[in-house]
Amino acid sequence: MRYEEYTLEGRNAVLEAFRAGKTIDKLYIQDGCHDGIINTITREARKTDTIISYVAKERMDQMSTTGSHQGVIAQAAAYEYADIEDIFAAAERKQEPPFIFLLDGIEDPHNLGAIIRTANLSGAHGVIIPKRRAAGLTATVVKASAGALNYTPVVKVTNMSQTIKELKQRGMWFVCADMAGETMYDLNLTGPIGLVIGSEGEGVSRLVRESCDMIAAIPMRGDIDSLNASVAAGVLAYEIVRQRLPETNG
Amino acid sequence: MRYEEYTLEGRNAVLEAFRAGKTIDKLYIQDGCHDGIINTITREARKTDTIISYVAKERMDQMSTTGSHQGVIAQAAAYEYADIEDIFAAAERKQEPPFIFLLDGIEDPHNLGAIIRTANLSGAHGVIIPKRRAAGLTATVVKASAGALNYTPVVKVTNMSQTIKELKQRGMWFVCADMAGETMYDLNLTGPIGLVIGSEGEGVSRLVRESCDMIAAIPMRGDIDSLNASVAAGVLAYEIVRQRLPETNG
Repeated sequence: MRYEEYTLEGRNAVLEAFRAGKTIDKLYIQDGCHDGIINTITREARKTDTIISYVAKERMDQMSTTGSHQGVIAQAAAYEYADIEDIFAAAERKQEPPFIFLLDGIEDPHNLGAIIRTANLSGAHGVIIPKRRAAGLTATVVKASAGALNYTPVVKVTNMSQTIKELKQRGMWFVCADMAGETMYDLNLTGPIGLVIGSEGEGVSRLVRESCDMIAAIPMRGDIDSLNASVAAGVLAYEIVRQRLPETNG
Repeated sequence: MRYEEYTLEGRNAVLEAFRAGKTIDKLYIQDGCHDGIINTITREARKTDTIISYVAKERMDQMSTTGSHQGVIAQAAAYEYADIEDIFAAAERKQEPPFIFLLDGIEDPHNLGAIIRTANLSGAHGVIIPKRRAAGLTATVVKASAGALNYTPVVKVTNMSQTIKELKQRGMWFVCADMAGETMYDLNLTGPIGLVIGSEGEGVSRLVRESCDMIAAIPMRGDIDSLNASVAAGVLAYEIVRQRLPETNG
């Protein structure tokens, strides 16, 4: 597991954690407590499907390490961001050329979770997200990732195009998704590859697009503009999977 | 456009429409009205990003056709379900073998919308959903479909496996997604095809799976169980797109 459990005590600490979108696994509330803040905390907990247990004061006092739980104790999960070296190590362990997802500003936590899930199942060795302008690993992301966060390392970087430059010097190639690109089936997507997915509204930013070696287009045969970001990531990732198969039908 | 606008008047009618998940495009509230029900309606409207306009009583009286608007008028959209013949007609217009999505119990409206969006862009001629055990065309679905619902016909049927049998007699082949199937790259997915996607939790039901000609597996190279339903639909749909291309790299 890539995360550590820790305990939060007291009304404000717990309420703030919910509001910040932190992953709360379990919530303990003292029997008979139901004033304003406790009710707000309970409501937040229900929204995120947190398990709530009502326990007696004596039990709460035993569980408390601070001695001032104010009737509320929560068990939270702190996801540990990984390091780029963890991704390379994972590729090496599997004796595969590195395959990395780079998410240039995915804002919707459902999409972020679904993409990390796809990264895991398409055999990518890790996911890189930017520190700013993007969803972090909130409870919604954790849930939408369906467990993938426990296996697939997620790295946060300050400057995506700088990271791409550095990874190029380690022999990686980068492909980004853009309608103006070449049809994905016509590109060579084998070898050590980084798949860059743009944000839901804006796509890949200019600077990042210019750092990429290839621009891949998913064929669009319909009437509207673009696929959902997590669907587009899945379609491209599986074109990479197909090209990487030892015996593809090519 | 596949939908008609209609007007709802009165507090209960409007509130009920919101609660039923109907698509409300615009909400008019009479200036100065803010009692309990009006506040509830406003809250529901905010949840679904409905545009709210506050207008004077004289204006409301003019807009009203019933004469008893009670301070609330809403413009709603009624999506018109299509008929299976509409799907065949669309395929014929494009001079393509029919390509249909069949959704066997997708419950999450975001997934349903994203899949209809994918159906449109992958060139499918329509989507079939079951009458029961599934999300209908609510406002969330409409939003997540990103406009695809205005182009791609959606048909509701009572019995999915019966529909599959009938469509087989019209020369269609059916493929469903299941981990126990053959790798999708090894199947022949050209010709008139129906792509069957199961529900998020349960996958394709036994009866429906047994009606299918082929069972396609997406290669899973990770640690967790399955892709998000809309991502899986996208990956399979684009394998069909690839195989249908006049000159694939095969």
